Amino acid sequence: MFFLEKVAILGAGLLGASLAKALCSRKLVGEISVWSRSESTRAKCSALSDVFSCVCATPVDAVKDADMVVLCTPTENIPLLAREIAPFLKSGAIVTDVGSVKSKICAKCTLALKETKAEFVGSHPMAGSEKIGVDFSDATLFENRPCFVVASEHSNAVEKVVEMWCSVGMKPYFMSAQEHDRAVARVSHLPHLLAGTLCIVSGENSFDLRPYAGPGFRDTTRVASGSPDIWDSIIFDNQDEILSALKDYSRSLNELIAQIENGDKLSVGLRLRVAKKFRDGLI
Amino acid sequence: MFFLEKVAILGAGLLGASLAKALCSRKLVGEISVWSRSESTRAKCSALSDVFSCVCATPVDAVKDADMVVLCTPTENIPLLAREIAPFLKSGAIVTDVGSVKSKICAKCTLALKETKAEFVGSHPMAGSEKIGVDFSDATLFENRPCFVVASEHSNAVEKVVEMWCSVGMKPYFMSAQEHDRAVARVSHLPHLLAGTLCIVSGENSFDLRPYAGPGFRDTTRVASGSPDIWDSIIFDNQDEILSALKDYSRSLNELIAQIENGDKLSVGLRLRVAKKFRDGLI
Repeated sequence: MFFLEKVAILGAGLLGASLAKALCSRKLVGEISVWSRSESTRAKCSALSDVFSCVCATPVDAVKDADMVVLCTPTENIPLLAREIAPFLKSGAIVTDVGSVKSKICAKCTLALKETKAEFVGSHPMAGSEKIGVDFSDATLFENRPCFVVASEHSNAVEKVVEMWCSVGMKPYFMSAQEHDRAVARVSHLPHLLAGTLCIVSGENSFDLRPYAGPGFRDTTRVASGSPDIWDSIIFDNQDEILSALKDYSRSLNELIAQIENGDKLSVGLRLRVAKKFRDGLI
Repeated sequence: MFFLEKVAILGAGLLGASLAKALCSRKLVGEISVWSRSESTRAKCSALSDVFSCVCATPVDAVKDADMVVLCTPTENIPLLAREIAPFLKSGAIVTDVGSVKSKICAKCTLALKETKAEFVGSHPMAGSEKIGVDFSDATLFENRPCFVVASEHSNAVEKVVEMWCSVGMKPYFMSAQEHDRAVARVSHLPHLLAGTLCIVSGENSFDLRPYAGPGFRDTTRVASGSPDIWDSIIFDNQDEILSALKDYSRSLNELIAQIENGDKLSVGLRLRVAKKFRDGLI
């Protein structure tokens, strides 16, 4: 059975704190140490004394003797943290993360751990909520959600990371970092930016459209309510794949505009049917 | 209290049959006659004998002596029906419709009734479902949903039409046909076409993205599952306003692409915040 003596969680936001709770409630771990940059978050972690055995003032303190280190900060800080903790990792330690973009993170973190006897494996558990922070953390957050694990070959470290995510209820998918970034650009980042653009264009209308918005409009724009602070860094961390997705979309949209302008009912009708078929095929 | 001696429903799809059930269950009408082009739908209406007192073989039969006639067919057939029934309407009869596009319909139907003593008032009850046809009809379909009534001035006919929609639970909004078409192009037609385009672009990816699609992708694309048969005619009936909305959207999207390309984090961050503010303001 899967068990880890010591896990270190760096960054106690929604994902980090939920992972700690999930591991703890399932008794999969001996002890969990945690670090957060924010003093108020550290105080909240101290209050969760059944979950966290040690709330540390520095990342280096938290990773001492840890078998598994999970980097749960905003994506931009993940490589910096990896560099900071590298000299202090125990031999055989495994470091993973929860960053929603993988190419840059995996390359930088692997490099950061090069001179150590620890190993980095990139993860992206696709779980979350519009409600962020330790206050909303939830031991069931990961259940039945997909988790990407970036691995080109099998290793003990990859196996342990997969076991950890599976043990909290996730379905693992293996991918290269590049494939991952393309996939999330298209199933997550693109929809977010399109929803936001629909809100912006609607807000520029000559009269307020919101009283007339029905369930269709609500659903199509829902993700635009997500935290801008998180999205700011995601977009520029996955800039190339997002641009490629946006340009594909823009091209297809211009095709549609031309078809409607030309009264090409046949092509427009075909589009509606191709779209419906794809959507009906979602599991 | 609102009461009509005889209502004629022309077209017994989801909306027509639901309106009949709603009026009937609230005892707001003496009798309801119905016509449908399809023989199988007429047979289903005959089975609903507590709702429909008379299932007619022609529109002209159905409107005989009716105080209120509701045209519930696909939008393209509404003006044709108005012309067909015009000579047979009783003096003082009110004709309305449920078409989701109003400029063309209102102009043509008003013209069709010009030489009669009946009056046309355009309506657009914003209710519906992906599930279509008399089989899914539901007396509660209209409750708490908005209904557009196209009226430039108050008249007895406008009042009666508003009373009818209010009596089945709708919230009325008055608008000119042009404002209406602009509003629905932007809150309904545009989201539909954007969702469809997202499905098309996703379906063209080099590997199947659907296993990785989360709740965000599901919601953003949900409306693309709607019936293409209905959307075919909506798009070309509201061609000008839809094109204007699509072009505004395309312009905004190209702006975003340029901002991301230029690494303009400030502008991208501002967009995310403006979008969130608009979306959070939805009632």
